[in-house]
Parts: sequence; C-alpha cells; structure tokens
Amino acid sequence: MIYFDHSATTPIHPHVLSLMQSVQTDMYGNPSSIHYSGQKSRSIIENARNQIAKSINAKSEQIIFTSGGTESNNQVLWSMLYNDKKHIVSNVIEHPAIIKVLQSLKVLGINYSLVDVNSEGIISINKMINAANDTTGLISIMLANNEVGTIQEVKKVVELAKKKDILTHSDAVQCFGKMKIDVTTLEIDFLSLSAHKFYGPKGVGILYAKKPELLHPLIIGGNQENGLRGGTENLASIAGMGLAAELATSSLNGHIKHLKQLENQFKSGLKKISQKMIFNGNQSHKLPGLISISFPGQNSNTLLTKLDRNNIYVSSGSACGSGDIKPSPVLSAMGHDHTTNLSTLRFSFGITNTAKEIDFLLSELNIILSNK
Amino acid sequence: MIYFDHSATTPIHPHVLSLMQSVQTDMYGNPSSIHYSGQKSRSIIENARNQIAKSINAKSEQIIFTSGGTESNNQVLWSMLYNDKKHIVSNVIEHPAIIKVLQSLKVLGINYSLVDVNSEGIISINKMINAANDTTGLISIMLANNEVGTIQEVKKVVELAKKKDILTHSDAVQCFGKMKIDVTTLEIDFLSLSAHKFYGPKGVGILYAKKPELLHPLIIGGNQENGLRGGTENLASIAGMGLAAELATSSLNGHIKHLKQLENQFKSGLKKISQKMIFNGNQSHKLPGLISISFPGQNSNTLLTKLDRNNIYVSSGSACGSGDIKPSPVLSAMGHDHTTNLSTLRFSFGITNTAKEIDFLLSELNIILSNK
Repeated sequence: MIYFDHSATTPIHPHVLSLMQSVQTDMYGNPSSIHYSGQKSRSIIENARNQIAKSINAKSEQIIFTSGGTESNNQVLWSMLYNDKKHIVSNVIEHPAIIKVLQSLKVLGINYSLVDVNSEGIISINKMINAANDTTGLISIMLANNEVGTIQEVKKVVELAKKKDILTHSDAVQCFGKMKIDVTTLEIDFLSLSAHKFYGPKGVGILYAKKPELLHPLIIGGNQENGLRGGTENLASIAGMGLAAELATSSLNGHIKHLKQLENQFKSGLKKISQKMIFNGNQSHKLPGLISISFPGQNSNTLLTKLDRNNIYVSSGSACGSGDIKPSPVLSAMGHDHTTNLSTLRFSFGITNTAKEIDFLLSELNIILSNK
Repeated sequence: MIYFDHSATTPIHPHVLSLMQSVQTDMYGNPSSIHYSGQKSRSIIENARNQIAKSINAKSEQIIFTSGGTESNNQVLWSMLYNDKKHIVSNVIEHPAIIKVLQSLKVLGINYSLVDVNSEGIISINKMINAANDTTGLISIMLANNEVGTIQEVKKVVELAKKKDILTHSDAVQCFGKMKIDVTTLEIDFLSLSAHKFYGPKGVGILYAKKPELLHPLIIGGNQENGLRGGTENLASIAGMGLAAELATSSLNGHIKHLKQLENQFKSGLKKISQKMIFNGNQSHKLPGLISISFPGQNSNTLLTKLDRNNIYVSSGSACGSGDIKPSPVLSAMGHDHTTNLSTLRFSFGITNTAKEIDFLLSELNIILSNK
C-alpha cells in the first residue's frame, strides 16, 4: 500500500514501537504505587516528560499528559468554565475539537466569537483581537490548519493578546515534526499536541501549560499529573510519545527537506496533467508535504475510490470525523462553492514515502483524472 | 519480583500483548478514514466493541470507548451539567474519580449528597435512596470498593432508583474478571470499566450506557463513538481490551477459584502469626483475592519498605493517587482511628500468583511483623 494520509495519522516509528513493546512486556507497576515496580514506571513517565519538554523548549513541569490532542483542547476550553472571563475568541477553520466544544459549552455559560478567514485560509490577527472584549478570557488559534496546512501568525496574536491580559491557546496537533515549535519564544499559554501525528502511538497527547495552575482538570480523579489529569497513566504510550518527540526533533530539518522534495516533485508532475486544479490555502506559509487540491468537475469520493483500488490512500478534506464525505467547512469558509468543495483531495506525505511512490501517484492520478 | 498489587494494575495478558503488538506494527490507518487502511482499523474497533458488549451482556451500541475508568466516571458526572435534575447521590467510600469530580462540579451547579458507610464498608441502600430528592438526577455507587473489596448491593439501589425515575451509575473498575457483571440483569444506566484492571493495557476503558443518548460527550471533537467521545481511537489498546475482556470472561470461574484458593491459603497462614490483625471490610461479600488488613502497632510505610526490599509488592490503602501515604478516607469512614488506618496493607492477588509465592509472603510477613 502507498500511504499519503499522514495528516490523519502516522505509522509508529520502529524505534518507538520497540520501546513500547518492551515497556508493555516488562513494566506494569502503577506509577502511583510506592513499591519499586511502581517507581520504575514513574521514572519512565518522568523521562518522557523531559523528552517532550526539551523538544518544544518547555519545562518538564509544564507538560501534562492527556489521551490526545482532542482532550488537550477540551481541557483548555472546559477550564474556562471556572474562569471569571468566560468569552472565548476563535475562528471558523479550527478543528471540531475546538468548534464543537465551544458550541457545547455555550449552554454552560461560555460565550464565543468565531472570526472568518480569507480565501487563502489565513486567519486575520486583527479580526481575532478586535473580537475580544472585556469578558474575553481566551483566544484559541491553530498553529496550522489540518485540511490545507496554512500556518497562522500565532506569535502575533499572542503578543497582542498579552497586552489585553487574555490567555492564548494553540492547537498545534498538525505541526509537531513538520515545523519548529518553541513555546517559550511563542509565549503561548497553552498548546495541544498528539503523538499519533508524529509517528507515536494513538491515544496519547500533550497539553503544554505555561502556568499549569491556570488550568483546571477535566478528567478528575487521583493526583496524577499534579492533580491536573486523573487516571492511571498510559505508561507504554507515554514512553513511546517521549521517544517519538525526541526522534522528530532530532530529524526535523531532514524531515522537512524530505517532505518539501516530495511536494515539489508532486507539484511539478501535476503540471503535466491536463485537469484544472486549485491548490487550497496559502502556498508559501504552509506545512511541508500537506497539499490540498480541488479538481473542479471531479468528485472526491469517486477519486478516492479509484485511488483506493490502486492501494493509494489519501483523504478528502479532513479525516477526523465520520467516514462519509461532506463539504468541508474549512473550504467553505475559504470561499469554495459546494461542488468545488466536494472535488477536493488532501495528500499528506510522510517520512517513509519515496520519489517512486510520488511517480506512481502521479501516473495513477493522470489516468483517473482523464477518465471521469 | 512477587507482585501482589493487582488492584492497582495488572500485567498485560501475553495473548493481549501479542495482539496489540501486531496491531501497532501493521494497522495504523485512522479509523475515520474512508480508504481501505482506515476501514481495516474501523473493523478492529468494532470487533473489540462486540467482545466487550458480549462480556457484560450489553449491546455493542451501548459501549463507548474512553481513556479509562476515571474518564468514564467523569463523563457520566459531567453529563449531569446538561441535565435538568442536577443533584447527585453518592457515598463517602467512592474513588476520587467520583468524589473529587463532584467537589469540582459543585461550583458549576451540581449539588450532591454523600452517604456514609458502616464499619464493614457496606453502603446503606436506604440511606442512598433517602438522600435523593426531587432534583436528584443520578445515584452513583461503586460495584465493589477498591481498597477493601466490599461488594455493594447495586441491584437493589437500581430497583429503588428506577421507581423514583433517577438514573444510576456504577464504578465497576475493580470488578471485571473477579465477579460476573451483567448490565442487563443489573438494569444499571451507566457502568465504568478500565482495561488495565483485567490484564489489558493502561490508558483505555469503557463506559457502558443503557441509553447512550442520555450521555453528553466530555471529550468533544470528531464524530467518533457516535459523537459521544471525540479523538482518534486508541486502536491497539482498544483491540487489546476487547481480547482481554473475552479472556477474562471465558476464564472467570477458574480465575475466581484461583483467587479464593490463594486468599484462603493466605488467611490460614496469617493465623499462625502472633500479631493482632483487623480484616477490613465485610469478608463474605467481597472481591476474591483482595485483602485489606490493618496491623495495629505497625506502620504501613515501614512494612511496605521491608516487603519491597524482599521484592514483594503490595499496597497501602489505595494506590491511585500520589505516592505518599496518607490515612485512607475509606478506612476512616469505616471507623478506623488515624494510627490503625496507617497500619494497613492491601494485598491483591492475580492470575499468575502461586501458592509458593503466598508461602514466601507469609514467611516474610512473619519475620517483618515480629521485628518492629
């Protein structure tokens, strides 16, 4: 199979797999137990915490382990229920793990404003800041969009928000391993990450908090994670995530270069195909290796099925969701009409993809697009 | 090492481990992706859902996958924020994943009453029902206590609650694999389970809901779990949990017999040790293989350390929590004074423990208890 859907999820790195399997086999003491078996587990978790902290230039006490990016986002937003200032500013192209949470929290007392985006998928910083009022406690803006890859000017938002004493959060789930993330330079208050997007396991994630005391737990129970996230720790997955973060950081430049090469090869090849194409999102400020293309006159469902038959796996719009293809709200917000919206494919390349695979993709696409 | 702390966590069953490792290596498509790789992942999840449903006599659509028992409990309780009737009845010996949640939800509008227990750790059904009023939306009662193992009369609570049109929830995290759980016979509305308590992996759990539409999501995002739990599914762990549930169910009677044999051997041997002992909790209605004993005049911290030096791992009170030994609120509620409380050890046996290990435990305990 040829897998071009790394923005949906990535395979586990072989070294990570090997570590996880060793932990799963040999280490099972509850990290909260005070006996030796428990303390060995504890040390594995703290080692992973250090690896993660180092990889985003944080302090280890600022790292909270969660079950994934969705939980991390939820924890930040639900925390605002306990805040005096209950208005939140975000935007229309955030992941459902932001927008649907805000919708759900409305009846519990959270107010929110969602600003729109331009046709290139760029969120206006000024609009976000202007949407804030005296009751605004939080501004949440993704570091890069999951469907089109557009990178947002998060640092600028943070700078302006600080002046208004407003906390900031960024869903950076798509970014780790594809761009440098330095939370200290960003000066962001909260940031969400998910291991399975950077060759770690599914079901585990990170919530960075500059000041953890500003957070409230969402999964409440034992005193794990300094009381900020209850439940017996997902030991093997946390260990795997730590290593995955370390590997992604040490190979970051090489990985970006590889993804850009594949992307350039793909885009050059596409020029030879006589089909109208719209490259979605700003093509200068984007994640490498994530390419969203609308093929007017085509239907993404049909294209997907035909590629699937050739064991080529890509996505239509965002994979996180149901399984049936609906128009992408992100592409709608960027101005696509219904039909163009439903003609879109997302290609997301990864570490193991090769030039040969891109050639095969191009040749198959050429056949498929010319035989409607 | 000799591990007698199975109520804190269990090692992963070798067959489960093998399945998980195969899924982690070969299956990584996002279950929400519509391509073949995603659909293979989807089928693994639905297979696990069927295994779980069968093991507790539920329908598969009543099973929601979570990150563990703590999250399952939280989801039920937080859901009540959206309920008209916002009063919850529970009791003082519940796990922190109930009591601390209620405390946190108080400022958000949840009222609650906690009834006490008798000296045997039995929660009075009448007290729970009498604590309910016209605004009571939920009664939450654990199926068995995690520190002393006392099994509660959940079925009776459910029967009485139904007459008052009150929903019921049970934290059954300690019970699966140690007693039969039949949610249809119990007629309970919600029930929480955690895989790592029954030889499955850490970081994954189950929320059973008789009518899932009465629940509200806590981790909100994509439409996973019919919109009741967002976030990319923890594929390998869910697969492992499904198999662990199947194995625990097929070997239930043998497992109970094994645990009872070890427990009987242990209790007989203890009679020969000249140290005053208090067996905590009702000894007739309890989980097999979970034995909580107070050793008046001793200090549990010292006992733990000495056992630890001999590679014998037990727990003092509940392991879920911090790591430092504090008086157990459960034992306090049962009437223990501070000193007796802090003289308590919890032994919890498991599938791989042997008669020989119990003999070793007895001989070491004999030495340790006679040399204060």
